[in-house]
Amino acid sequence: MKLSTPTQLKDIASIINAEYVGEPDFPVSGINEIHMVEPGDITFVDHPKYYDKALSSKADIIIINKKVDCPKGKALIFSDDPFSDYMKLVKKFRPFEAASKPISNSAIIGEGTVVQPGAFIGNHVKIGKNCLIHANVSIYDHCEIGDNVIIHSGTVIGADAFYFQKRKDKTLKFESCGRVIIKDNVEIGACCTIDKGVSGDTVIDEYTKFDNHIQIGHDTYIGKRCLFASAVLVAGVTRIEDDVILWGQVVINKDLVIGKGAQILAISAVDKNMEGNKTYFGAPAIEVRQKWREMVAIKQLPDLIKKVKLLSKQMAERK
Amino acid sequence: MKLSTPTQLKDIASIINAEYVGEPDFPVSGINEIHMVEPGDITFVDHPKYYDKALSSKADIIIINKKVDCPKGKALIFSDDPFSDYMKLVKKFRPFEAASKPISNSAIIGEGTVVQPGAFIGNHVKIGKNCLIHANVSIYDHCEIGDNVIIHSGTVIGADAFYFQKRKDKTLKFESCGRVIIKDNVEIGACCTIDKGVSGDTVIDEYTKFDNHIQIGHDTYIGKRCLFASAVLVAGVTRIEDDVILWGQVVINKDLVIGKGAQILAISAVDKNMEGNKTYFGAPAIEVRQKWREMVAIKQLPDLIKKVKLLSKQMAERK
Amino acid sequence: MKLSTPTQLKDIASIINAEYVGEPDFPVSGINEIHMVEPGDITFVDHPKYYDKALSSKADIIIINKKVDCPKGKALIFSDDPFSDYMKLVKKFRPFEAASKPISNSAIIGEGTVVQPGAFIGNHVKIGKNCLIHANVSIYDHCEIGDNVIIHSGTVIGADAFYFQKRKDKTLKFESCGRVIIKDNVEIGACCTIDKGVSGDTVIDEYTKFDNHIQIGHDTYIGKRCLFASAVLVAGVTRIEDDVILWGQVVINKDLVIGKGAQILAISAVDKNMEGNKTYFGAPAIEVRQKWREMVAIKQLPDLIKKVKLLSKQMAERK
Repeated sequence: MKLSTPTQLKDIASIINAEYVGEPDFPVSGINEIHMVEPGDITFVDHPKYYDKALSSKADIIIINKKVDCPKGKALIFSDDPFSDYMKLVKKFRPFEAASKPISNSAIIGEGTVVQPGAFIGNHVKIGKNCLIHANVSIYDHCEIGDNVIIHSGTVIGADAFYFQKRKDKTLKFESCGRVIIKDNVEIGACCTIDKGVSGDTVIDEYTKFDNHIQIGHDTYIGKRCLFASAVLVAGVTRIEDDVILWGQVVINKDLVIGKGAQILAISAVDKNMEGNKTYFGAPAIEVRQKWREMVAIKQLPDLIKKVKLLSKQMAERK
Repeated sequence: MKLSTPTQLKDIASIINAEYVGEPDFPVSGINEIHMVEPGDITFVDHPKYYDKALSSKADIIIINKKVDCPKGKALIFSDDPFSDYMKLVKKFRPFEAASKPISNSAIIGEGTVVQPGAFIGNHVKIGKNCLIHANVSIYDHCEIGDNVIIHSGTVIGADAFYFQKRKDKTLKFESCGRVIIKDNVEIGACCTIDKGVSGDTVIDEYTKFDNHIQIGHDTYIGKRCLFASAVLVAGVTRIEDDVILWGQVVINKDLVIGKGAQILAISAVDKNMEGNKTYFGAPAIEVRQKWREMVAIKQLPDLIKKVKLLSKQMAERK
Repeated sequence: MKLSTPTQLKDIASIINAEYVGEPDFPVSGINEIHMVEPGDITFVDHPKYYDKALSSKADIIIINKKVDCPKGKALIFSDDPFSDYMKLVKKFRPFEAASKPISNSAIIGEGTVVQPGAFIGNHVKIGKNCLIHANVSIYDHCEIGDNVIIHSGTVIGADAFYFQKRKDKTLKFESCGRVIIKDNVEIGACCTIDKGVSGDTVIDEYTKFDNHIQIGHDTYIGKRCLFASAVLVAGVTRIEDDVILWGQVVINKDLVIGKGAQILAISAVDKNMEGNKTYFGAPAIEVRQKWREMVAIKQLPDLIKKVKLLSKQMAERK
């Protein structure tokens, strides 16, 4: 997330009441979790295993729970609980704003766009021209929708990422401050859910069309002209390139790349990267021809067992 | 879709500004895609592969992109882009009408029916007597609901068919003008989606009961007294006969027939027609006993591999 | 369900206009289906197969369709149709109350709780402090939500159990009178459905977090600190203990117990009880290592078939 106003290191340290190393006016331009950091960003690290990764990342300000040396050109903030302090910053810079009406006054809605009754349009939402937002759609704060977009009833755009830390006695919520960006000419079916990014954006690119009951996790990118049939699930931080077709109930795991033009047949489950322009099937999904060979082999299995029994008997008789 | 006013060939040709062959006053009574045509209908064809099918179909008026001979008793309309011109007609005869309030003035709602807060009832919707439409249900324009029907919250009746043409640079939407018809004594769970027909009707017949998260595709027929457990997906243009039971997360592919009294066990995926009064399981689903034999055989597989290794060794030793 | 006012045997018999055996002022404190009965409850039985079970259950008042001897300390009500008479009592003591506004006057909402536009809060609902109920959530009558609970848009809490009796010509609805109880610090994703108990409660315990599109059946108990990824289905009357993790699209059958700390990998289907602190995978789910062995064996199957063919040939040549 980019900060909307100029902010300095001393402002940040004062919000979380912490010591820091660096110039007080060191500029801070964004706040991002470690997987999404860019120059100018604050991030946090609370486990020795990830210290090096955080200190050598693109982030310029690191909240850390050990007094390490400050990398050149960067700043450090020391905290006993970097996770909680980072969450404090997220809440400070992207506070939840309760809605006083179904369509926020701070939402910008383009010419020709129709918003049907019962739709909720949150604060700072932008919707382009000639869109059709059907009844009982919910669009959370800060999301952006392009032109000529259709969103069917019951669909939820921008709910929080499913991102928790499990502790002994409780589960801690990682507050999301990202957005959902839906580009021009997209159509989203009924009862779909597209989660906001944890600190970045979840993006659905141009001319992509979704059937109903589809789930898109946080920080996922869906390319252009994709077609997803009903009940497709795509987990977080996955990248699906242009022209991918996913049939009904396909599940795609997190952190994967599905290549341009790939097609994945119904009820498949994908657990690794898939090259483009090929067709896959199965759980786990493999190239469809290979899967069919496996399925034919399984059909032969009962006969095979009989055959091996016979061979064992024959072998024994000849001893 | 039946046209609500008497229409003639010359009216149609004038809407899409096209040449035609046939009497100017040739009567037009409906508009349907090729799979659903009836006498009196307009349809369209834009690929030489389907010319014969369209010209010999029950449709009486064919929009076509080649100057062919007109079949006896029919009429032809010539168009460079039959798809787009057909879509123009769909939009003309079934225009989208933005709602000005949650329950349209043109909706007819029977005696004793309760509509809870937040429910959306579109234009020209008909709902029978003694129904209970729970909070935040969305019923799109033109749908019809019988008597004693219960629809739970979050459910969407009549969203558009998932029906697109993929072109090089975009995806084209096939506009739906069909309806959803729900007969008497049906109960639909929460967060279900039942799509309207592309040009015909999607029908849920009497006494059928759905659990939550169910998806029914366009132009599908669901028979009487069916029971569908949660997260069942039925794709488009499928026919499910009376008394069929589908357990949780069952997927049924498009264009199939599932026979009366069939039962399909949880997490199965059906890709071909199924005879009635039998029980099926698996993905792809087969008769349950056959599937169990397969599953038992798979359990024996690791042992079988060892046995074959041993046999190979014994065979080699006796050479 | 506990009755809210003191009730006696003669009151019950008079509602359903039936003969009874027992003191007229025999106290009645609750109404429950046979699986949930406690002392003081009425229940019903209509099939000889279950007479003994009902008569020896904890229920003190049994509606029965045969003139049997009354067990000591209990009461009997005779009815030609115990099912229908029991339903009459359910409707009498837990009548459906149509809502006149989105947030019922009889709902109790704690300090600091935010209810976003379009959310429906039914009659007699209790919501604790500092909750966030997002837009277009639906909470049915009598449900109870603890403190610090977040419920995302499109979610439905307390819809009816999917519980029907199939008869020759119709399907009969078993009316639900139970509740959903959500404890403190729970978060429920978008487009989830949690059904009320048939006569008892469906419970989601403290610090449990759900992703989107999750379905929880009636009378199910979900323990503390569980994490469920998207599209998880849990059928009715199942008990999931503390700290269980269910990954995407996992299905759990009804009437099961999943032990504390169990983890079930994505797309698995569970059809029997699972011991805690282990990891499972597959459909049906088994311990993950065993499943992997099976999957490796299947990969070897095409080769195995070739090997057996060769062995058969060699054996034949040596005859």
